[in-house]
Amino acid sequence: MSEITIKDIARICGVGVSTVSRAINNHPDINPETRKQIQAVIEQYGYIPNNSARNLKRTESNGVAILIKGITNPLFNAMVKVFDEKMKRYKLSMILQHVNYEEDEVAIALELIKEKRLKGIIFLGSNYYYPQGELKKISVPFVLSTVGTIFEDEDSTRYSHVTVDDVRESYKATEYLIHMGHEKIAILSAETRDSSVGRQRMQGYLKALEDHHIVENPKLICPVSDELEHYSMENGYLTTKKLLDSKEEFTAVYAMSDIMAVGAYRAILEAGLRIPEDISVVGFDGIELGDYLQPKLTTLAQPVERLADATFELLYDMIEGRSGAQNLIYEGELVEKESVRRIEGKERS
Amino acid sequence: MSEITIKDIARICGVGVSTVSRAINNHPDINPETRKQIQAVIEQYGYIPNNSARNLKRTESNGVAILIKGITNPLFNAMVKVFDEKMKRYKLSMILQHVNYEEDEVAIALELIKEKRLKGIIFLGSNYYYPQGELKKISVPFVLSTVGTIFEDEDSTRYSHVTVDDVRESYKATEYLIHMGHEKIAILSAETRDSSVGRQRMQGYLKALEDHHIVENPKLICPVSDELEHYSMENGYLTTKKLLDSKEEFTAVYAMSDIMAVGAYRAILEAGLRIPEDISVVGFDGIELGDYLQPKLTTLAQPVERLADATFELLYDMIEGRSGAQNLIYEGELVEKESVRRIEGKERS
Repeated sequence: MSEITIKDIARICGVGVSTVSRAINNHPDINPETRKQIQAVIEQYGYIPNNSARNLKRTESNGVAILIKGITNPLFNAMVKVFDEKMKRYKLSMILQHVNYEEDEVAIALELIKEKRLKGIIFLGSNYYYPQGELKKISVPFVLSTVGTIFEDEDSTRYSHVTVDDVRESYKATEYLIHMGHEKIAILSAETRDSSVGRQRMQGYLKALEDHHIVENPKLICPVSDELEHYSMENGYLTTKKLLDSKEEFTAVYAMSDIMAVGAYRAILEAGLRIPEDISVVGFDGIELGDYLQPKLTTLAQPVERLADATFELLYDMIEGRSGAQNLIYEGELVEKESVRRIEGKERS
Repeated sequence: MSEITIKDIARICGVGVSTVSRAINNHPDINPETRKQIQAVIEQYGYIPNNSARNLKRTESNGVAILIKGITNPLFNAMVKVFDEKMKRYKLSMILQHVNYEEDEVAIALELIKEKRLKGIIFLGSNYYYPQGELKKISVPFVLSTVGTIFEDEDSTRYSHVTVDDVRESYKATEYLIHMGHEKIAILSAETRDSSVGRQRMQGYLKALEDHHIVENPKLICPVSDELEHYSMENGYLTTKKLLDSKEEFTAVYAMSDIMAVGAYRAILEAGLRIPEDISVVGFDGIELGDYLQPKLTTLAQPVERLADATFELLYDMIEGRSGAQNLIYEGELVEKESVRRIEGKERS
């Protein structure tokens, strides 16, 4: 499939290449009739002017990369949808790239910057920790989104992030279960070497137990497998199945992402147990799917639209030179649905 | 945030700009020691060579656009994951753009071609019909994927598509229900003015009824709302709810996409009915989520990996000039899970 060239257009119109060029560039020095004729031919053949200066300017100026860790998480899907709408409005184009769990997103970002002339970068679901100097290498504006990154650099305010406070929100989710009378609370956590939000959510869980004088039971801390995508239905399913097989007693499962909770549901129901009569379940994220589960999933909902909106607007302001780096923290919300039962006589406050 | 320039590097190294340029371009005419020193400084400061010829070449040559109609459909998510892996391997970059149902994907493609120098385009979930001459305007190689597009152009073989035969597969899904003894089969279909796969899947449904001498009941044909994303949980839920409220009798629901079936499940269970004891459900697509529903969803599974693989490989061969347009049709498979009951004494063969 070879493209039609300016020479073809000139030949078809019976004029010289320079005349076609003048028509394309709206040069005044051309007969209006000829211009009209040339434009008609250009349209008819779908010819796209191939002026390299023009293209250089265009290709340079409008790419924004989104680097996503955790492709199958519907949370990011919902955010990408917001970015997509915004980018269209601002005439930017979205370059989407998935990053595997074991890959280094900064290295991928540097490669993209080399290959493209990016205007900016949004990191979704990336690490919460970067070694000193690591992020300094990134030469375009960027925002770390949905992750409360801790920077080892002397001056952490030089980088932007937009997120909930994962420690605090995870504390809220755990405390909700405690208030409902649960003490034996299993957690489906990120794998042990996790360096993403998983570690912070684990901290919130442990702190809530401690503050309510509940002794932590290591057998109820269930890291998902490192062999599979961490935050996935399959991993939530297999990890819950293992927990059930262990015969360790528990009355509630706190899944640190809704998509894991979907897997937990399946494992619990397959074992012939009921939700919430036998086992209560709480998720984290607030994805739409939670409302379609049976029973509906109680979850710590992130303010997805606001996070996505703030992420994009901050990046755009940085690109336009209207803003420096900012750290924006939003509040999550425990949304009560149908997956948690109250253990009578055991409510704490 | 201003980028470090070649001048800065030269100043830091105490050499001229041309020496830095020679170091960057691996010019032989430079002292190896100096080159080493310059490269160290370049690395230290994360300087990215900004040679416009080099950038032009790079930006020109490696973008492939994916235009998706139906962002929340996990089917496309699974396909994008395959594309992402392939693009990394072939050093291409993926420009992802969502297309709303009411938008014209060809117009968006033409705009992207103008702005970027695309190598090629993949259309996911686009229309099944284009007016004559419409696709001819697209000047780069492209593949229509997951849609058995019917071309009005005299020579339809000039365009590529990779898909299942939606009429035939939908026939299989409907016939499976008939073989299980169902006659009152409701269909959750695309909205009435649909010009996507919905129309073809409807044809398959009607043909299967006809071939088995079952009179079509218009009250059991339930188009989803045009106000919402067509293939979505919410639309499947609301449409099924309306059907249940209508009190029209039926024993099975055939949802023409799994994601609609998720919504149908919710509506059926909320109404106090059981799946499959009271209502059987069959989906279409074969998304992972179906296996996590309670009961597991019986569905007409598309060969997602193979479709994605074939789509990308065909596009790549077209880009490389090794292939012309091709129409590749793959077989789907009815995967029996737990959501359909057999109506005893009524099985047909």
